[in-house]
Amino acid sequence: MQYPSKLIENAVNEISQLPGIGKKTALRLVLHLLRQDQDTTKNLSEALVKLRTEVQYCKICHNIADQPICSICNSQRRDKSIICVVENLPDLLAIENTAQFTGTYHVLGGIISPIDGIGPNDLNINNLFQRIEQNKEEVRELILALSPTMEGDTTSFYITKKIKPYNLKISTIARGIPVGGELEYADEITLGRSIAARTSFSYD
Amino acid sequence: MQYPSKLIENAVNEISQLPGIGKKTALRLVLHLLRQDQDTTKNLSEALVKLRTEVQYCKICHNIADQPICSICNSQRRDKSIICVVENLPDLLAIENTAQFTGTYHVLGGIISPIDGIGPNDLNINNLFQRIEQNKEEVRELILALSPTMEGDTTSFYITKKIKPYNLKISTIARGIPVGGELEYADEITLGRSIAARTSFSYD
Repeated sequence: MQYPSKLIENAVNEISQLPGIGKKTALRLVLHLLRQDQDTTKNLSEALVKLRTEVQYCKICHNIADQPICSICNSQRRDKSIICVVENLPDLLAIENTAQFTGTYHVLGGIISPIDGIGPNDLNINNLFQRIEQNKEEVRELILALSPTMEGDTTSFYITKKIKPYNLKISTIARGIPVGGELEYADEITLGRSIAARTSFSYD
Repeated sequence: MQYPSKLIENAVNEISQLPGIGKKTALRLVLHLLRQDQDTTKNLSEALVKLRTEVQYCKICHNIADQPICSICNSQRRDKSIICVVENLPDLLAIENTAQFTGTYHVLGGIISPIDGIGPNDLNINNLFQRIEQNKEEVRELILALSPTMEGDTTSFYITKKIKPYNLKISTIARGIPVGGELEYADEITLGRSIAARTSFSYD
């Protein structure tokens, strides 16, 4: 497409590099910004630059943070004896949003995937072992909250094998039929697992 | 949603003010930017600020431009005797992309819509009349390329009435069945118009 202005062309090209945003959407966003006052654009771009230059990763759990130690690791109310291992920040936020978990996290920053050339050394896995080693008096349980995929299972297996000496309680999040899900549409692996891992029914 | 970092929260809030982008998409974009190197974010935000502060509107046709007069109005190859009136920039770009039109444009910057409180004085309509007045020797035809809606028809009617004294040829873009469209799925107004405005069939 030919744009009447280099400035527009430039902005459209930059915006359309973001995932899920094509040239047409980018143009729509650009025209939207042109209709708003200058502060909208100024605030947006300042927030982005500030984010990219000032954001830190927690030295303990590799969660994103404004200080060297994140608010979860810093909190007195979080149970330091439980570490929940997650792949990335969206997964951490999803678990935080349930308000069901009061332990701490460890963000791997990815998942072991030989086909993509990602090995344990590309992830925050060794830091996890160091963290357990340094706090072996305190840490009692490790929850492996990784996706139920080949890569997730590989990563869980690798971590489990490595921390065997520490004699921790190791758990994974429950697999099964989602709440509100229809039994007949569940795939056979999920259904099979959910029958094998059936829980006792209570009346209250 | 609770974010582990004020910087992320801020960036997510700013991005999710853009049309069609919610908090989840905004977070995905933020995490994408964090994975890229700093230059990606820097280039993006510079392009946006530059766009917003430096963009100009053509003094003749109100198209977006890098100079006071846009490249279309400046071009020797464009037929200045034909003015195509469009609602906004995307419409102009859509017509430009057909490569079928060699005249000039006039961008109204909106459309008369009493229900939204938009009258002729909120648009670049008076400039259009001035432009025609100042170039009445040159301008021969006005194409009203507005949407076939109530507002579009109102705007077309208003313009037509006002420029009656100049005795210009006034046309609108053809309404009809889209190329590749199925007759049975066309709405009755479009089909009715396309029969009333039938064109003679040629064999070549």
